[in-house]
Amino acid sequence: MTPIITLTTDFGEKDHFIGAVKGAIYNELSDVRIVDISHGISPFNVIEAAYIIKNAYNSFPKGSIHIIGIDSELTPENKHIALLLDEHYFICADNGVMSLITSELVAEKQVVINIHDRMESDFTDTDIFVQVAAHVARGGTLEVIGKPIKEIRQLTGFKPVVNTEGDQIIGSVIYIDNYGNVVTNITKRIFEEVGKGRAYEISARNYKFRAIYDRYSDAINFDIERHRREEDGKKLAIFNSGDFIELAIYKSNPLTVGGASSLFGLRFRDSVTINFL
Amino acid sequence: MTPIITLTTDFGEKDHFIGAVKGAIYNELSDVRIVDISHGISPFNVIEAAYIIKNAYNSFPKGSIHIIGIDSELTPENKHIALLLDEHYFICADNGVMSLITSELVAEKQVVINIHDRMESDFTDTDIFVQVAAHVARGGTLEVIGKPIKEIRQLTGFKPVVNTEGDQIIGSVIYIDNYGNVVTNITKRIFEEVGKGRAYEISARNYKFRAIYDRYSDAINFDIERHRREEDGKKLAIFNSGDFIELAIYKSNPLTVGGASSLFGLRFRDSVTINFL
Amino acid sequence: MTPIITLTTDFGEKDHFIGAVKGAIYNELSDVRIVDISHGISPFNVIEAAYIIKNAYNSFPKGSIHIIGIDSELTPENKHIALLLDEHYFICADNGVMSLITSELVAEKQVVINIHDRMESDFTDTDIFVQVAAHVARGGTLEVIGKPIKEIRQLTGFKPVVNTEGDQIIGSVIYIDNYGNVVTNITKRIFEEVGKGRAYEISARNYKFRAIYDRYSDAINFDIERHRREEDGKKLAIFNSGDFIELAIYKSNPLTVGGASSLFGLRFRDSVTINFL
Repeated sequence: MTPIITLTTDFGEKDHFIGAVKGAIYNELSDVRIVDISHGISPFNVIEAAYIIKNAYNSFPKGSIHIIGIDSELTPENKHIALLLDEHYFICADNGVMSLITSELVAEKQVVINIHDRMESDFTDTDIFVQVAAHVARGGTLEVIGKPIKEIRQLTGFKPVVNTEGDQIIGSVIYIDNYGNVVTNITKRIFEEVGKGRAYEISARNYKFRAIYDRYSDAINFDIERHRREEDGKKLAIFNSGDFIELAIYKSNPLTVGGASSLFGLRFRDSVTINFL
Repeated sequence: MTPIITLTTDFGEKDHFIGAVKGAIYNELSDVRIVDISHGISPFNVIEAAYIIKNAYNSFPKGSIHIIGIDSELTPENKHIALLLDEHYFICADNGVMSLITSELVAEKQVVINIHDRMESDFTDTDIFVQVAAHVARGGTLEVIGKPIKEIRQLTGFKPVVNTEGDQIIGSVIYIDNYGNVVTNITKRIFEEVGKGRAYEISARNYKFRAIYDRYSDAINFDIERHRREEDGKKLAIFNSGDFIELAIYKSNPLTVGGASSLFGLRFRDSVTINFL
Repeated sequence: MTPIITLTTDFGEKDHFIGAVKGAIYNELSDVRIVDISHGISPFNVIEAAYIIKNAYNSFPKGSIHIIGIDSELTPENKHIALLLDEHYFICADNGVMSLITSELVAEKQVVINIHDRMESDFTDTDIFVQVAAHVARGGTLEVIGKPIKEIRQLTGFKPVVNTEGDQIIGSVIYIDNYGNVVTNITKRIFEEVGKGRAYEISARNYKFRAIYDRYSDAINFDIERHRREEDGKKLAIFNSGDFIELAIYKSNPLTVGGASSLFGLRFRDSVTINFL
């Protein structure tokens, strides 16, 4: 079967970097599918990258190879690693970008890549990633290109905190999406584990939410005629497609009516609290 | 032949949504070409999406499958539909996004998609579109995944208006392109039908145009030496590649000299009038 | 082997143009790989395009076909050309976009495309490029679609200037990348040829640099503990992956800490000077 290699980077859409990576892959593999997941991650924002790869990877067929090109310059403190996890391969720097995935699933294999001294002298970090991806695509194992390691780096201060009374979750904003909607680090699982079915109030700045919907349109009552019901611009909370709690505006457009982020005054890393009653 | 599935959405280039859709398609079909038409449509702007799909689809081979992911959340008022038209397949929500195409061509088949109860419980709207696209790509017919319908929704207030004397067309801006040029909803066909070869004046804010060119450079007189002729920044009207009247600036760059949109003070939905003399 | 056609344009990510080009290519060739290099070049900025194609093309396999869609409207002063150079094919307008490549390598073949009168009447400039690309992809030669020419246009005022004493290079900014880093037109080769190992000082506005690193992280001393060392936001000069001198900020993010471009106050075409001591 034709191997799939995905790309998730902060390279942007303008520079030559993406083209150069794709060219290098086609130079190694004549039969391969290259799929862009995102190149729009904010520069060096490892948390955004962690969120995107977490939500995209498992739509792909098992055996897919995911290159994550963010904050990947090789330094004594930033090794290159490769993982086999959930039957997918991941190639990235050991900077915490896998944290969201590894907080839920254990890697089957994880190695520090050690092929750097086999490369030509002017190799780039993405050259390394392409070599490893091509090796895996040809059926090679991770042990051949790296040395097994026990631990990889985890992002700290990234998980929501539960108070000792067990009636409060303090989370934070980890992502603002294309519609301006605000994604928190509070998952449905932690919400249900802590809440145990109790009533609750979500607080973010001056806004309160007492319901979490499964779909945006569940917040709208379609029995009321269109012109009489509250609809566009309605504030709501949902479990999004990645099962994170998201604070949203119904049919928001950041360019016109404004998105949740600007209307709520919530930015990356701001706190969002849930109190159970 | 390898099926082609195109994607036209307002998902943006940053979020994980595009990657997730592509992964899902590859999960269904091992041999398929996925082609991005645009993911940069303004959120929920159905008119922009209508304009883009109208101008892109018929460059593709007959039999191509076009997924249009805009304002597609399933609600009692927003059904999912699929069409066979001009030997192309279209999968979208019934929100008017097909209006520009169906105002010129009649669909051979059109159905309301009714496979939702066969899906897993946490399906998304794009999951539905991917399932339908995969079904068609495998050679399946629309009748198997939907129920024929007579009417689909048309955008209102979208077509230009001709006065009763037949000497005036009142149109509006439907699209601002990457160069800042201003596309109106007045097609070459309606211009010729109403104008019948008469002289005319196009008015937009304080600007007047008395010629419509076929190419940008037709507005430039290359017999005059370069440094003496009016060229960069020249205001002009053309029939663009989609045969819509477009108000443009020659070699405009919105980042530097400014595009037609800002120079003319014309925005989405502003009116543009043609008077025949 | 499946032919590769790359696209480098100023079409942007929103409009229908890219989709239309891809559709047209698939209409001509059932077995082809289309690879986006960039569609984010500033409108009509031939220098940016020259920089991007120079740095991306040679990652691709020999025999790849590169369409460059910038400032490509056919006029008496802007012919369409095709080149075979370094075993790659290039299709573009004769507007200087090949200057950075042809300043280092001589084209094996270069022709003015002359198939325009064989096209349907409403062809676009990209239609021409697609026809030529398809011809080459099918194994056709350049002589069949064009007439050999001796000279193609070179961008002027584009190369750095060396003073008569041979102790100063005056260059300029040719590109600002996604991280806000500032790329100059001074290559490692000219730096070494003029400098002959002498000490030097790079001046750009009020900033001075006395070292040029090979990698961003070479500017950081990892022997010092993380919290005590100067790191994020550190100003530095490097030879970038294209061997141009680049003025950068370590781990810069234009959205937060600011990129080199805004911090240094350096914009496209601003001058950067090197004095040898």
